[in-house]
Amino acid sequence: MKSRPDEFDLIAKYFAPLSGEGAFGLLDDAALLSVPDGKKLVVTQDALAAGIHFFADDLPRLIAKKALRVNISDLVAKGAIPYAYSIALGLDEDWNEKWIAAFAKGLAEDQAGFDMVLTGGDTYKSPGGTTISITAFGLVDAEDYTSRLGASVGDAIFVTGTIGDAALGLKLKQGEIDSRIFGKHEKSYLQERYLLPQPTSMMAPVIAEFASASMDISDGLIGDLEKLCKASNVGAETYLPKIPMSAPVSKIVQIIPDHIQTALTGGDDYELLFTVPQNLVTEFRAATHLLPISISKIGVVKEAKDGVVLLNDDGSQLSFGNTSYKHF
Amino acid sequence: MKSRPDEFDLIAKYFAPLSGEGAFGLLDDAALLSVPDGKKLVVTQDALAAGIHFFADDLPRLIAKKALRVNISDLVAKGAIPYAYSIALGLDEDWNEKWIAAFAKGLAEDQAGFDMVLTGGDTYKSPGGTTISITAFGLVDAEDYTSRLGASVGDAIFVTGTIGDAALGLKLKQGEIDSRIFGKHEKSYLQERYLLPQPTSMMAPVIAEFASASMDISDGLIGDLEKLCKASNVGAETYLPKIPMSAPVSKIVQIIPDHIQTALTGGDDYELLFTVPQNLVTEFRAATHLLPISISKIGVVKEAKDGVVLLNDDGSQLSFGNTSYKHF
Repeated sequence: MKSRPDEFDLIAKYFAPLSGEGAFGLLDDAALLSVPDGKKLVVTQDALAAGIHFFADDLPRLIAKKALRVNISDLVAKGAIPYAYSIALGLDEDWNEKWIAAFAKGLAEDQAGFDMVLTGGDTYKSPGGTTISITAFGLVDAEDYTSRLGASVGDAIFVTGTIGDAALGLKLKQGEIDSRIFGKHEKSYLQERYLLPQPTSMMAPVIAEFASASMDISDGLIGDLEKLCKASNVGAETYLPKIPMSAPVSKIVQIIPDHIQTALTGGDDYELLFTVPQNLVTEFRAATHLLPISISKIGVVKEAKDGVVLLNDDGSQLSFGNTSYKHF
Repeated sequence: MKSRPDEFDLIAKYFAPLSGEGAFGLLDDAALLSVPDGKKLVVTQDALAAGIHFFADDLPRLIAKKALRVNISDLVAKGAIPYAYSIALGLDEDWNEKWIAAFAKGLAEDQAGFDMVLTGGDTYKSPGGTTISITAFGLVDAEDYTSRLGASVGDAIFVTGTIGDAALGLKLKQGEIDSRIFGKHEKSYLQERYLLPQPTSMMAPVIAEFASASMDISDGLIGDLEKLCKASNVGAETYLPKIPMSAPVSKIVQIIPDHIQTALTGGDDYELLFTVPQNLVTEFRAATHLLPISISKIGVVKEAKDGVVLLNDDGSQLSFGNTSYKHF
């Protein structure tokens, strides 16, 4: 085995350059985070484990980006501007310096793109495989924080982007879909959607200004909508033809209709699901129509007793056995 | 296998009761943390993995406490008052509800004892064994934050408590020490010191007011002192007879002198190591002598060129091959 740097060299060489003000170049045990007067700090923590959330042989640069972006996605969904993050990195026995260098490069690229700094964290030996636990911090005016809990009857329900790409990208990677169905570009599109969530900070002020409830879609659209409705004590009526799907997903659903369930109840979309009060929808549309983000109205908030319903073209109701990715 | 609650029931039943203001009963994706005007937030993140930082069959109540306390120890070392924490809990295949209930009880007891609340986090499947990553938050007046970087030549060097108990408790647990050397109470004392760090918030204002540099001792006194000195660009002269040791540690060192190395370079003390400017020492002593905490002066800060030196009774210098627990 090539000689490997020890923990302190590793931190000094690859992670200290990512640290920001108050992190003491990662020479200290903790970091000092400033929160501007009048702002509040939004805190979220999501962990990824090899073999569960990513494949051990995925590119380390992309693993790093996914680990950071699943957290950024939560911040943006709350209407918060990404600010900083802390990372606990558990390395398996086989780690090597090249892997770390690529992993740190992924963090560096994304923290630059999202204007964040590293506050610190921990590196440790993880016998069961690489594990990454990121705690991300965002800033928000207190009144702008958008929870899952505020949807009201009559609100319009929106999603960003397209739904189901990542879940089908995963099935493709796992060989559960005949890859001959797709052309080369379709295949790489779906797989990249699985590998790399695409949250965008541009949505944060829009959510903050207009949304009554908001979350990111990480465990499948239908299950996550059920969670939002439960937290807000409401129901929802959504319409299948309104749910935005990419060309490759539309294609597979036409060929194998069962994959509508994969698309709507699989995980890893990392798109936003949010509600906007009916009287704000026109203004919301005006404020967002120039953004380079597709935003689709998929339904309307109903009373809790109406349940969470997905209607087909012909008005018939679709339902699925499992509406959500199960964590365990 | 008995049926197990799903992620959401688990969170609702065991973790939501631990959550505080701004955590929305853990129904939301994130939490909203208030930082009082004029205060800064201290952030630290330490992870523990089964088989590395604890034994998989340790009591879950104690595993929870250790996971929280290693982070609290960092906060107190920075002069910060513990405030809140977030947890990513990776569960292995074999988890059961009883384990979770006991784990949550450990968190509940300690967060009450340290006056903290849970902000949120993540639960996930961890194929390699239970992994706990806690991010802890403390509050501090900005000017009171005490890093490792501020020690100056002439400062007195202090430690709290006794050194080496946990490292010898671990050796005892691992069967690397003949347990017949110790009586029953000595054995349980050493093993408890390994299992359960004993940080105390009482030290936070003392560190904030008097210390020029501070850290907790997690990887062994000598190695951690070297780290503090490196960060502060100073050296240190310390005296073996001044290093506080419990009766069981003194006993084993008398019988097997090599265990002085175990005691001074092993990990898991979670005592505080800090420096106090010479002109504040009298006032510091007056301010702390009524605290129920033993505080020992072990040496003095020297110039960087003098290195980090440990002197024996007779003025001879002790040195060890390895001065620190290696994380990998």
